[in-house]
Amino acid sequence: MVELYYWPTIQGRGEFVRLALEAAGVPYRDVAREKHGLAAMQAVLDAQSVQHPSFAPPVLRAGGLLIGQTANILLHLGRAYGLAPRAEAGRLWAHQLQLTIADMVAEAHDTHHPISVNLYYEDQKAAAKKRAKEFVETRIPKYLGYFEQVLENSKGSYALGKRLSYVDLSLFQLVEGLRYAFPRAMARNEGNWPKLIALHGRVMQVPAVAAYLRSARRIAFNEDDIFRRYAELDF
Amino acid sequence: MVELYYWPTIQGRGEFVRLALEAAGVPYRDVAREKHGLAAMQAVLDAQSVQHPSFAPPVLRAGGLLIGQTANILLHLGRAYGLAPRAEAGRLWAHQLQLTIADMVAEAHDTHHPISVNLYYEDQKAAAKKRAKEFVETRIPKYLGYFEQVLENSKGSYALGKRLSYVDLSLFQLVEGLRYAFPRAMARNEGNWPKLIALHGRVMQVPAVAAYLRSARRIAFNEDDIFRRYAELDF
Repeated sequence: MVELYYWPTIQGRGEFVRLALEAAGVPYRDVAREKHGLAAMQAVLDAQSVQHPSFAPPVLRAGGLLIGQTANILLHLGRAYGLAPRAEAGRLWAHQLQLTIADMVAEAHDTHHPISVNLYYEDQKAAAKKRAKEFVETRIPKYLGYFEQVLENSKGSYALGKRLSYVDLSLFQLVEGLRYAFPRAMARNEGNWPKLIALHGRVMQVPAVAAYLRSARRIAFNEDDIFRRYAELDF
Repeated sequence: MVELYYWPTIQGRGEFVRLALEAAGVPYRDVAREKHGLAAMQAVLDAQSVQHPSFAPPVLRAGGLLIGQTANILLHLGRAYGLAPRAEAGRLWAHQLQLTIADMVAEAHDTHHPISVNLYYEDQKAAAKKRAKEFVETRIPKYLGYFEQVLENSKGSYALGKRLSYVDLSLFQLVEGLRYAFPRAMARNEGNWPKLIALHGRVMQVPAVAAYLRSARRIAFNEDDIFRRYAELDF
């Protein structure tokens, strides 16, 4: 069975993998949420224990492979479970979009941690306010405007055409996260990205996704996560 | 002929692509360095002009494909020109390492731009000092210690074994950039990463790489680039 190793109390980057596994109906263990799971997660990050250690979670064990880096895991899952086009052009295009989503997720994280991951938010709040203001005013419009354009260029109602792919699932999660972290900014500006918002709604109604979101497997957003709701950062 | 579209006056993320093309002996045009090249670069980023616009350069046009995102371009080049293993396990492992390098490059960039890419360095210098200190003291050791471990686990003298791959070229460039930006910190700490430093020297002596580094095609590091030498950030 496929095994996911990721922090057990946050959605984080692992959520992009969970959504893909759920949407494709792949049976999987979310190992770190089981008893002694954190020790198991540490083991797959340990270069003494494994041949291909990851720098950070998420890590996926599947079919004899141990795979790190979120977008890389999705590259594998897309191929293995039909969540991406098979031909090289479509496969690379899907991955390119996923890497751009990953860049935006990293920037969203840095709104509350602009100085260091080793310091508390409270110890970098002044810089966080400046970075969050820039993120809300210039980066959200630039990234989401780009994804809106991608959807306009699409020949179907999903990002890559007529079929659901991991890119759609990730765009759904991106909108979810931004709405959680920046509710006022998103409410004010969502009208600029009608196709992206429509895609979010469409993905939410995919039966396997809807079932997952209702289940206890979906962890709630919280302030240990990448997307955090701090009123003072919601410009 | 393969066409690279990237900023003409910096190494930047494009350099990881240039190194791969040079090492593989692929004839290519560095389009934005030619006359009217910046307009040509803008065109491949324009969603009205192309079906698969990129969010940012570098962009590669090769064999009918237009590919964005540095690591994605290398994924393609690795397969097309033998710069990565062909089997899925090795291919994904190479890509995972490249994505981890990309994460470190983004963090290196943010040492001088911790608040916003839209502001000058001088306008975010106080935050930059804090972020750079954390980067030098905790992130460089964590990332380079990880890559050192990867080299220790390797069955050959290159990151993936006995053959040069794009990962080795990127690790070379990473060390180059860090030495340029943080000369004191690197001089003090390089002894902790003997295999990585040896790899850097080995890659520099690959004939095609050595020829490239001596040529006018190699742009010098400068303070418009990702890796910048600011004495006050070299802790």
